[in-house]
Amino acid sequence: MFDFTLLAPIGAVVALIFAIVMAKSVLKNSEGTEQMAKIAGSIRKGAMAYLKRQYITVAKVFVVVFVVLLILAFLHQLSFFTPIAFLTGGIFSALAGFFGMKIATSANARTAWAAKESLNKGLRVAFSAGSVMGFVVVGLGLVDFSIWYFILKAVYAGLPAPEQAAQITMQMLTFGMGASTMALFARVGGGIFTKAADVGADLVGKVEAGIPEDDPRNPAVIADNVGDNVGDVAGMGADLYESNVGARVSACALAVTAGLGFEGIAATMAIVAIGVFASVIGSFFVKTKEDADQKALLSALRRGTYIAAILVAVASFFVVRGLLGMEHIGVFGAVISGLLAGILIGYFTEYYTADAYKPTQKLAGTSETGSATIIIGGLALGMRSTVIPVVIVVASIMASFYLAGGMQSYSLGLYGIALSAVAMLSTLGITLATDAYGPVADNAGGIAEMTGLGEDVRKRTDALDSLGNTTAATGKGFAIGSAALTALALLVSYIDQVRAISPDYTLNLQLTNPPVLVGVLIGAMLPFIFAAMTMESVGRAAQSIVVEVRRQFREIAGLMEGTAEADYHTCVDLCTKSAQKEMVAPAILGIAVPIVVGIVFGVNGVVGMLGGATAAGFVLAIMMANAGGAWDNAKKYIESGAFGGKGSDNHKAAVVGDTVGDPFKDTSGPSINILIKLLSIVSIVFATVVINCSLIK
Amino acid sequence: MFDFTLLAPIGAVVALIFAIVMAKSVLKNSEGTEQMAKIAGSIRKGAMAYLKRQYITVAKVFVVVFVVLLILAFLHQLSFFTPIAFLTGGIFSALAGFFGMKIATSANARTAWAAKESLNKGLRVAFSAGSVMGFVVVGLGLVDFSIWYFILKAVYAGLPAPEQAAQITMQMLTFGMGASTMALFARVGGGIFTKAADVGADLVGKVEAGIPEDDPRNPAVIADNVGDNVGDVAGMGADLYESNVGARVSACALAVTAGLGFEGIAATMAIVAIGVFASVIGSFFVKTKEDADQKALLSALRRGTYIAAILVAVASFFVVRGLLGMEHIGVFGAVISGLLAGILIGYFTEYYTADAYKPTQKLAGTSETGSATIIIGGLALGMRSTVIPVVIVVASIMASFYLAGGMQSYSLGLYGIALSAVAMLSTLGITLATDAYGPVADNAGGIAEMTGLGEDVRKRTDALDSLGNTTAATGKGFAIGSAALTALALLVSYIDQVRAISPDYTLNLQLTNPPVLVGVLIGAMLPFIFAAMTMESVGRAAQSIVVEVRRQFREIAGLMEGTAEADYHTCVDLCTKSAQKEMVAPAILGIAVPIVVGIVFGVNGVVGMLGGATAAGFVLAIMMANAGGAWDNAKKYIESGAFGGKGSDNHKAAVVGDTVGDPFKDTSGPSINILIKLLSIVSIVFATVVINCSLIK
Repeated sequence: MFDFTLLAPIGAVVALIFAIVMAKSVLKNSEGTEQMAKIAGSIRKGAMAYLKRQYITVAKVFVVVFVVLLILAFLHQLSFFTPIAFLTGGIFSALAGFFGMKIATSANARTAWAAKESLNKGLRVAFSAGSVMGFVVVGLGLVDFSIWYFILKAVYAGLPAPEQAAQITMQMLTFGMGASTMALFARVGGGIFTKAADVGADLVGKVEAGIPEDDPRNPAVIADNVGDNVGDVAGMGADLYESNVGARVSACALAVTAGLGFEGIAATMAIVAIGVFASVIGSFFVKTKEDADQKALLSALRRGTYIAAILVAVASFFVVRGLLGMEHIGVFGAVISGLLAGILIGYFTEYYTADAYKPTQKLAGTSETGSATIIIGGLALGMRSTVIPVVIVVASIMASFYLAGGMQSYSLGLYGIALSAVAMLSTLGITLATDAYGPVADNAGGIAEMTGLGEDVRKRTDALDSLGNTTAATGKGFAIGSAALTALALLVSYIDQVRAISPDYTLNLQLTNPPVLVGVLIGAMLPFIFAAMTMESVGRAAQSIVVEVRRQFREIAGLMEGTAEADYHTCVDLCTKSAQKEMVAPAILGIAVPIVVGIVFGVNGVVGMLGGATAAGFVLAIMMANAGGAWDNAKKYIESGAFGGKGSDNHKAAVVGDTVGDPFKDTSGPSINILIKLLSIVSIVFATVVINCSLIK
Repeated sequence: MFDFTLLAPIGAVVALIFAIVMAKSVLKNSEGTEQMAKIAGSIRKGAMAYLKRQYITVAKVFVVVFVVLLILAFLHQLSFFTPIAFLTGGIFSALAGFFGMKIATSANARTAWAAKESLNKGLRVAFSAGSVMGFVVVGLGLVDFSIWYFILKAVYAGLPAPEQAAQITMQMLTFGMGASTMALFARVGGGIFTKAADVGADLVGKVEAGIPEDDPRNPAVIADNVGDNVGDVAGMGADLYESNVGARVSACALAVTAGLGFEGIAATMAIVAIGVFASVIGSFFVKTKEDADQKALLSALRRGTYIAAILVAVASFFVVRGLLGMEHIGVFGAVISGLLAGILIGYFTEYYTADAYKPTQKLAGTSETGSATIIIGGLALGMRSTVIPVVIVVASIMASFYLAGGMQSYSLGLYGIALSAVAMLSTLGITLATDAYGPVADNAGGIAEMTGLGEDVRKRTDALDSLGNTTAATGKGFAIGSAALTALALLVSYIDQVRAISPDYTLNLQLTNPPVLVGVLIGAMLPFIFAAMTMESVGRAAQSIVVEVRRQFREIAGLMEGTAEADYHTCVDLCTKSAQKEMVAPAILGIAVPIVVGIVFGVNGVVGMLGGATAAGFVLAIMMANAGGAWDNAKKYIESGAFGGKGSDNHKAAVVGDTVGDPFKDTSGPSINILIKLLSIVSIVFATVVINCSLIK
């Protein structure tokens, strides 16, 4: 019989080839006028400079962690594969970020220029650029997985099949830490960079100097454009790369625990690979007509995603029947529930944050009584918007557990939960393409503005940009939903891991066991402190930009008159440095807390902490992302003429909301995704240490 | 041997006698000038009108719930004592609120007039009025407890001692629902009333009409003063009445489960009674010298609380040794840990919210860059401030569990946790006196302002008022800390209850059991939606006040000139009506969710939900209370001359922060205390229903 695990490398190759094709199709377009090429060049240079600096910082951290892991391996607390896999995970994630950013920042001017020709052409260029990020993330993730899977299979070839499968999957569980550490820097660092630049540019440029957004006289304007890319392309990509890795390894491990052996691994990998093929097919359906309005554009993007999801759903049925047999056909239900959950969370995120719907329109109305009421309104909206995603995730967990067979076999049900996360992420190629499309379109709009392209071009880039705001919001919903499911899957795998390492360890995971209980309390607090730290980081970093921009306006003669050029580079550099510096404390928090909690309260405490952090983190992240998105769009809704329009007192109140929302939706909210996964993966890697050293067993 | 449970009725009598003595000492003072008496009369009348209306609404709800409980009793899902005890619990809590408010609203003008004589005299009057609330709450709570305890003891007299004790305590666990329902209306309704009046008065009076705070021309000024009383006296009192009841009954039940029998009950009650005596003694130490500054005043109040705590600590040692024997002396450690936790949480709440310390001073500085940055700064401060209280509660849980003997006997450890909550609340008489002092001093300041008492009197009332702000903040910390511990104790008792009702029920409380896991997720979301609902309620209610105040300014000729009187009554009435109306949805949420979750996900799901809600609710409540407190004091700090002082742009930014903080600290934050306890108590009352009807066992 065909070895279905071979679908993993095949999927990897298909994804990478498709990414290359897409990249070429982007690059064959013209960057437009010389000025456009120059600005695009500055953005690209800035983004690459940021990445370079980030990779240097990350490299240092990787060396330290690598040495620690190596020492642990020598002390028999870890396998020797783990430190090496830690490196490869980080390197592949970094590579994905590099290629994705390279193409995204090469596509902005090209999108603007293509939009001169037609709306559809602009859409295609931007979406193709986004696809590169999507498929590189998926492809390289599969490359890393495949390499290690086949190496470990060979290493453990002497063992009987069930044990061999168990050894492979248990080993691979610890391999996620490279991707996690990379994601931490990309997502949190990117989030700090982008909002520091945005807030800094706005505070001095728009408010003090009174020049419009995206004005080339603003020294922070390039940094602002770079920020869109490092935040929403590289950051989002690394975030989902990590989710993808985490969901996959935990599903494989739980499949083996559930007694499905290599068939279980093969089924999981087949679904992942099918997702790649389905995403490729889906992406051909993303096109639009010239007279498309906002709704038509959105449905063009949606069509691709939905088609991909339907293809995965249909094919999964045959995969499950073929590999696991009709007795396990219920596992197919877990796939469906994961796919549905991803789509529904995205939809309701849009409902709560887009100005086409009631909640954001009503929020815009609260600006009538000033900035305090729009702040209260936005916070309440964010809090209220947590209900439906929680219900969706709860329904998805219960459905996957019971449909997969949780009543007969507990571990089969747990495999169902992990598989629903895999299914949700299976169409990542096209979902992430849709997300990464946003910053490209945003940048294209900025370049069109800066270079004074014609009214009709700007109307088209505006339409594309505005669509990007919607996809950014749904992308965030998808990212946090998948992060929560992945974190839960990792949590369950962690316990398996502990049982495998030390069968005698006294696991008492009852919620009323004091270590579990206090773990939940500590865990619930972590997302709050993480959010506080990242919000304060943005504040400090933005402050340094403010000082620099003011200095340039003061010292560079002719800058305001447009006769001298601003020193964009220094602003980019400052944002980069601040982001790297501000990363340190949250990174230490995320890595140290699971170890400290483990050593003080034992495995039971760690499990409580992971549960508390995932639950509270999921809710807080949605609240922050949706409040931020709604404030942003409430402001845009007012700018479009509602409630007094631009320049009114209501607009000023809405700007306050938008500014508060900036770090909410682009820094702190998304950073919580990383936190909850990082906590789980660190717990898994340090399981042996905690088992051996904990004070309370 | 002396029956130490008799200390309960003795403590009740002592508390009530002391309350009467204090009330008389307040009432023997003069209300001052005729104008003062008139204003005080209006406030008193408004407060009493509010209470009357609230009691009518509550009575209707009580009838409905009583009938439901009665039907359940007929269906053998509950004992027939429960519906009756539900009524008595509600009635005693209501009575406590009535007397406390009566004296508090009789003391405001008297405090202002006494302050004319000396600072110490003003302090004594205000503090004595607060003591009435404190000791009535403690006393009536003990009356209710004693009556039922001795009735049930007689009813089950035929059983052998251990079974008799078990029956009594299990029955009494369900008796908390009356106090909980009352607390819901008092705390949430009071919170909505007070902030609707405050925000409404400020928005039109200060901002639109440009008249100062506490100006008698403002039609909402009396409602504002009434609000202080219904929120911080009646609301806080009912909140802590409920905590007190919950902690006590769960500690008694767990003592019996731990095999301590009637000695365990006696020890628990003895500690409660000692707390009463200690509080009486402590309150004599609250006095100050004429030239006292803020610090001296604060230490005057603190002295009383600390002395009471030390007395309880010392006496508890002998109680534990005498009643439980040296083998259980570790239980004494639980008492100490509870007392310490209460004091420490209060202290750190003050640290994060008082303008004498760095955090609030730095927050005031963020106003330099506008309202958006002070909002972000306050939210970050609130989030950051959750760390220490979580660490304190975690340490307290672990210490009480292990010190009480959790290593040898699991249930002994759980009794330790519940007892630490009892110990924390043992000095409630004086702690609550300190809290309820706040609104009295606040009102006194308002009356002094409105009636134009001399500069020196106002300086004294300002000093007393400002102290009240600090005690209000620490009181909130104490209330949420005790609510969290009480909720956890009730959670543990709930499981005991389930085991007692149905020994065969499949309890799988492991965090990884899907019903538990989704319960935690749902639970973590509940405080957020509750906060959203209550914030939106304040917004709607304030809006109706704004409309009314504008109408009065427009229609009542001579109002602005001071020749005609405002129609205060209508504003009070509007706030009352809004508060009652807005209560409905949160009340339904709090009562329905545990039943629905129970029926869908079974007992395991309920336990998960209680754990998630308590953890996330504790963190969110602290965040909201502290952010609100810090914004309030940052504004006051600027008003005192820092960062540009009153009227500066910084001040305007700080006002935005303060307005956002109002519903945070006085409505939503404190309401979460009620939510987490109510969820537990509803779960306990409906345990049999859930056991019999749940879809997932």
